[in-house]
Amino acid sequence: MIILGIDPGYATTGYGVIRKEKSDLSAVDYGVITTPPTESLPVRLAMLDEALTALIKRFEPDSIAIEELFFNTNITTGIKVAEARGVILLAAIRECGKLYEYTPLQVKQALTGQGRAEKKQVQYMVRALLGLKSEPKPDDVADALAIAVCHANMLAYRQRTLN
Amino acid sequence: MIILGIDPGYATTGYGVIRKEKSDLSAVDYGVITTPPTESLPVRLAMLDEALTALIKRFEPDSIAIEELFFNTNITTGIKVAEARGVILLAAIRECGKLYEYTPLQVKQALTGQGRAEKKQVQYMVRALLGLKSEPKPDDVADALAIAVCHANMLAYRQRTLN
Repeated sequence: MIILGIDPGYATTGYGVIRKEKSDLSAVDYGVITTPPTESLPVRLAMLDEALTALIKRFEPDSIAIEELFFNTNITTGIKVAEARGVILLAAIRECGKLYEYTPLQVKQALTGQGRAEKKQVQYMVRALLGLKSEPKPDDVADALAIAVCHANMLAYRQRTLN
Repeated sequence: MIILGIDPGYATTGYGVIRKEKSDLSAVDYGVITTPPTESLPVRLAMLDEALTALIKRFEPDSIAIEELFFNTNITTGIKVAEARGVILLAAIRECGKLYEYTPLQVKQALTGQGRAEKKQVQYMVRALLGLKSEPKPDDVADALAIAVCHANMLAYRQRTLN
């Protein structure tokens, strides 16, 4: 089973593609989709849509997991991230159909057993669970992989509780 | 010249199509795109995208004007509106290309000459300038028409200042 995790952004969107075979997890591909600050926001959203659509068509994920949005101090940036997230949700539902959303707390909980875990600890667990030689950079990539792993674990948990 | 004004929302998106001939403005069509609360947000965004795309293809506007987003007290609703606005920006840039954004202050200023005008006054001016028999309802429709009229006036102003 292929899972695509996404950390949404209008300037940088992190993505992580992982494979789950029984309880084994491995990284297939990961990286960022970036859009140039010289373009207007609508044009950047169109670029994000195109790149993400191509990514979904290429890896044909069985499901897509995306982080829920919480606002920090900068509300202007927050609005733009939410606008990008809307475009991402649309591409995900159109191209894949199986879309799951997780809060940052759920992601931390699923990876470390601790909802208030630090970023470093989450990144360490991403590396360990996926058997990566180094911690994936930048943070957007690590976050996207973390969301994908979170979803893989939640699926396993659901199957256990249903059986 | 045909102008499409949009008041963005995930539950209700107001739209107003107006025609500008020299300095004459008239309403071509107006209404709301609604999405059912029983569906998930991604599905509602897909419905909004489909309906808006059909609307743009039907009226073939020369330009699209959309209100900039400001956050009120309810941040959860605000995030969803921003997600819907991202989808709207994407459809507008993809289907039309000519996209203009105005702040609520600019809309009020353009319609009444007063940035702090009350909603009622803006609605009265929309009705008067478009020669409508009654004030368009709900507010989302009046707001969408106001944005379209704002854009028509701004265009006229730009032409005057350029000549």
